[in-house]
Amino acid sequence: MALDGRIEQAVVGALALTRSGEGPPRLTAALDHAVFPGGARIRPTILLSVAMACGDDRPGLSDAAASALELIHCASLVHDDLPCFDDADMRRGKASVHRAYGEPLAVLAGDSLIVLAFEVLARAAADHPARAVELIKLLAQRTGAPGGICAGQGWESEPVINLAAYHRAKTGALFMAATQMGAAAAGQDPEPWEELGARIGAAFQVADDLKDALLTPEQTGKPAGQDAAHQRPSAVTEMGVAGAARYLKDILGGAIASIPSCPGEAKLAALVRAYAEKMTPVHLSPSAASAVRG
Amino acid sequence: MALDGRIEQAVVGALALTRSGEGPPRLTAALDHAVFPGGARIRPTILLSVAMACGDDRPGLSDAAASALELIHCASLVHDDLPCFDDADMRRGKASVHRAYGEPLAVLAGDSLIVLAFEVLARAAADHPARAVELIKLLAQRTGAPGGICAGQGWESEPVINLAAYHRAKTGALFMAATQMGAAAAGQDPEPWEELGARIGAAFQVADDLKDALLTPEQTGKPAGQDAAHQRPSAVTEMGVAGAARYLKDILGGAIASIPSCPGEAKLAALVRAYAEKMTPVHLSPSAASAVRG
Repeated sequence: MALDGRIEQAVVGALALTRSGEGPPRLTAALDHAVFPGGARIRPTILLSVAMACGDDRPGLSDAAASALELIHCASLVHDDLPCFDDADMRRGKASVHRAYGEPLAVLAGDSLIVLAFEVLARAAADHPARAVELIKLLAQRTGAPGGICAGQGWESEPVINLAAYHRAKTGALFMAATQMGAAAAGQDPEPWEELGARIGAAFQVADDLKDALLTPEQTGKPAGQDAAHQRPSAVTEMGVAGAARYLKDILGGAIASIPSCPGEAKLAALVRAYAEKMTPVHLSPSAASAVRG
Repeated sequence: MALDGRIEQAVVGALALTRSGEGPPRLTAALDHAVFPGGARIRPTILLSVAMACGDDRPGLSDAAASALELIHCASLVHDDLPCFDDADMRRGKASVHRAYGEPLAVLAGDSLIVLAFEVLARAAADHPARAVELIKLLAQRTGAPGGICAGQGWESEPVINLAAYHRAKTGALFMAATQMGAAAAGQDPEPWEELGARIGAAFQVADDLKDALLTPEQTGKPAGQDAAHQRPSAVTEMGVAGAARYLKDILGGAIASIPSCPGEAKLAALVRAYAEKMTPVHLSPSAASAVRG
């Protein structure tokens, strides 16, 4: 996909800022480790797809938004992997940042990536200051408290979890950021794009729950069975594999139906359909497939 | 001082944003714990003092800058206190955030405060978008990598420390942010204000080294002798108490001399002199005083 090249170039450009002065070399290396090689870069892909569906008249701003969003996602992975959260040894098939560089640099790498995300947007502001400010507000809202991914993770430290708020913040927030920032980068009102992001986020949550329950660490590049091990809420424990797979299909149908009217509407619907195909992991596991059929 | 009220009001307003939706209550409480009651709020005081010396024609923007800077400072304290860094039980005379709320919420509180700082600046942008963008760039530069406080802390994980870069980033960065953001909020070129911030930062580093070596935990509200315990570079171990006290005086003289020409120049010089008075802790300790005299 042509978007891949745009996203990697934008992320590489962002990380170059951390080498633009005399910084501590191991922290700089930890930042690279956290961001490269990337995963599927799904959030920035959705962001750029929405921007293009809306005309993408300021591609520099869209690229900055895409890389900023991916940096926040990478920061969240680094901090979520820390011993006090998932204590994950591996991420994307290699050592997690704290395993490779130690816990202090993992904390600092996450912090630095959050800062870098906002710096990238501020640096792209010359292109259109008002839109850049809107992008910074949207990204902050979907990252911090009370409704961003920090808050989402924070719900796991509560004695009683508000499940709707938890899922919306933990997984949904950065997908809502993706659709809304894509629209805002192209000068469109971000509000009507929230629902699409929320639905894609909910779909990814259910898909993740299915993957966590069904796939091996070799297939996902991270430890399996983490939801059960940490007693986290999961669509699979709530409604079983077959129920979760059906639910996933329903959400994706709703996502496509929610796409606001725009020049690239059909292309965007095709993209969501393609993700839906990729997201449904049941064909990877014969036992799960039979469970769904049965 | 009248500035105190402005700063508290701005910080209270910023924290109110974290209660503007359905967030996890313990994270919200941890954010309050991290920010209130404050310490001396020195960095925002310097920021507002410089803004006022430069005319302070957009007080809303100056207030946003002051609270954003204080939020970053509070975030850095929360993360620096974590077990993988200082493992501090106390901060500002009460339990550190991770002692009061656990390590996961301490990591998330620090992250959320960083995000909130940038959100506050973006929300103040309507007043003057170009200045707000400049403020976001300045704050990011002094917070992340390669030259901000994250990088400063990162130097402590290096096998060989670049001492000049370390001090400049670890303590100097937020004081340079204070003077430069104060000027930028008032529409002045921030560049000539860097030196004043750097010198005040250096003075605070030496004063901190003196306090760490001379004062008791009851006097500072945090553990004593941490530099020696963690084998951190310190002006006291490098040049002794008397040498460090002389060095502090020299730096502060240079700071006053470096103040750029502006309407409020004399008042600002008086403020730095007042800080110098407060900063020199030798009179608090009879043994140290005799060491300096001797």
